[in-house]
Parts: sequence; C-alpha cells; structure tokens
Amino acid sequence: MADEAAFQFLHNEVIQYIYKSAESGETENGRHIAKLENMGFRVGQGLIERLTKDTARFKDELDIMKFVCKDFWTCVFKKQIDNLRTNHQGIYVLQDNKFRLLSQLSAGKQYLEHAPKYLSFSCGLVRGALSSLGVKSIVTAEVSIMPACKTCITRPSSSQRQEKSVTLMDNCAASISIL
Amino acid sequence: MADEAAFQFLHNEVIQYIYKSAESGETENGRHIAKLENMGFRVGQGLIERLTKDTARFKDELDIMKFVCKDFWTCVFKKQIDNLRTNHQGIYVLQDNKFRLLSQLSAGKQYLEHAPKYLSFSCGLVRGALSSLGVKSIVTAEVSIMPACKTCITRPSSSQRQEKSVTLMDNCAASISIL
Repeated sequence: MADEAAFQFLHNEVIQYIYKSAESGETENGRHIAKLENMGFRVGQGLIERLTKDTARFKDELDIMKFVCKDFWTCVFKKQIDNLRTNHQGIYVLQDNKFRLLSQLSAGKQYLEHAPKYLSFSCGLVRGALSSLGVKSIVTAEVSIMPACKTCITRPSSSQRQEKSVTLMDNCAASISIL
Repeated sequence: MADEAAFQFLHNEVIQYIYKSAESGETENGRHIAKLENMGFRVGQGLIERLTKDTARFKDELDIMKFVCKDFWTCVFKKQIDNLRTNHQGIYVLQDNKFRLLSQLSAGKQYLEHAPKYLSFSCGLVRGALSSLGVKSIVTAEVSIMPACKTCITRPSSSQRQEKSVTLMDNCAASISIL
C-alpha cells in the first residue's frame, strides 16, 4: 500500500506549495488551478509516451479511451476506472468510485469545496495523455460525494459545447465494458 | 517500468516550477534548494509513518539506517541502496549506483552542475524519515559521476562537524551488508 504513497504525498505537497503563496482570491484560485492543470498536462504527456512504447496502434477513439481507463489509470492511481460511459458523439464520462487523490480526505460532503484543487492535476494528466495520442479534449471533473469522482472528457469539435457537458453526463447512458 | 514514472515526472515538474520563477542568482538558488528540501522532508515524514506501521521496534540507529536503505529506498526509488558504510560514530554513507532521479539525465559529468536540484528533494526525504524515527540528522548528497549518488547522513551530535563529513566519507571504510 505504501508503494504509491510517494506520488500521493508529493502531489499534496505541490498543492500546498502552490496555494501557500500570499495572494488569494477568486482570480488567484483560478491561476493556481491552471498551474496544477498544466503540471498534470506535462506529466500526462511524458507518462503516455512511456506507456504506449510497445502498444499496438489504436483502432479508434474509444480504443484510446479504454486504454486511458485501464492502463493509464492503473499506472498512476493503481486501480482502473470503475465505469466508462459515452454518448458516442465525443463525450466520455469516466467514473472512479474511490479516487486515490481524494482518499486522504474525509469521505462525505464536508470538504467538497476543497475538491477542485485535488482534481485539477489529474484533469491535466488526462488531457496531456490524450493530447499526445492525438485527441484534443476538454477535461473536467466533478465530485458529488467523496471519494468518488467523475471525469468528463469532451472533444471541442463535438457539436455539444463544454458548458453543456455536465447536463449531458446524464445522457451518456451507454455504459461500456472496459474489462 | 512505467509504474514509478508518475512520481519521477511529477518530481521533475516540481523542480521546473520552483526554478521557473523570474529571479535567479546564488541566494535564490539556495532558497529553491531549501524549498525542495522542505518538501522532501514532509513527504519523508508521511512515508515513513505509513511504512513502519506494522514494523517491530528498531534495535538501534544502525537498524534504522538499514530500514531506510532497504524498505524506504525501495518504496520511493524501486531499488535498494547498493552500499552502506559507517564509521560507527554517527556518520553513514549511502551509495546508490543508479539513482533513479538522476537516471533521466545523461550519464557522465556533463550535467554535474544541475545535480543539486535533483538531489535536494531526496535529501529532505531521508532527513524527514529519520526525524520521524527520532534521529536528528544533517543529510547531504554528492555526485561525482551520473547517475551514481552518495548520500551522507551526519548526526549533529556526533563529534565531527558536518563540514568535515565529505572528507570523512573516505574514512567510513566499514562497509555493512544490508541484505
């Protein structure tokens, strides 16, 4: 269990370090989130390059998503995504029922307001990985109860706009077996 | 091989992030090193707490050092220390012939000047772990050729002063089997 802890502790330190800077406020908070997201982006790019070194070419976008849900997620978070849903029009919803980066926070709704800073790095991570695989995307995350986390991937080219993606999550009824 | 890469990539990002700030110079460099070292300290404290959860009480200081060389090092760097030497007076020299955080840099002497920023985090890591086990220490690291790294642990209470520790490294002739 302690094997992956180094990553987790370092991730927490980074968040603390970035948020420690004196200024705070709405705009500052947005900048911190962006910094974390960018960091995740580059880590994701590096990781996917290493992971796909000996992998066969992907058939299609869904194949890429399955790889992200299984191999990529397992590499970083030591478990795979519990549920992948898609509307087959460029929106994917990845559900992790026990998201590792949130597992050190109390379960429940008490600390929900702090969730964004713990999620932005991994949003970047997914976006970076997908970008290296040639899929431009917008990645957002949503927590309604800790430590479960929904990650929503939207292709900007898809007809739906990103702002609608949250409501569209419910429309992604087609659950896909990723096993 | 990709399993531990997340930690490694994140570590590189943190270094880049800390060094990216506009100011640079001798004093600034020192402050960056201190920041990284402090980050490592807290990660080390957290890790050792988790690692020693089910461990029997340590007999003595040497026992603690062996634990750091084997279990702790393996947890973070996926290999154990290659050689542990001590003068039995509070100085320990840990030699890692293929230090993971340096393995992404070219082997040889070309980038030796950049070594300190890649070592300060792990110095803090060891200091934090030892501090949580009740051993106050000064931890320094030395690279003479990449990717080999010598970590020197000095107890401040030991009669030798830390400045002497580097020359004392050669006096630590008593090699200890850590296997």
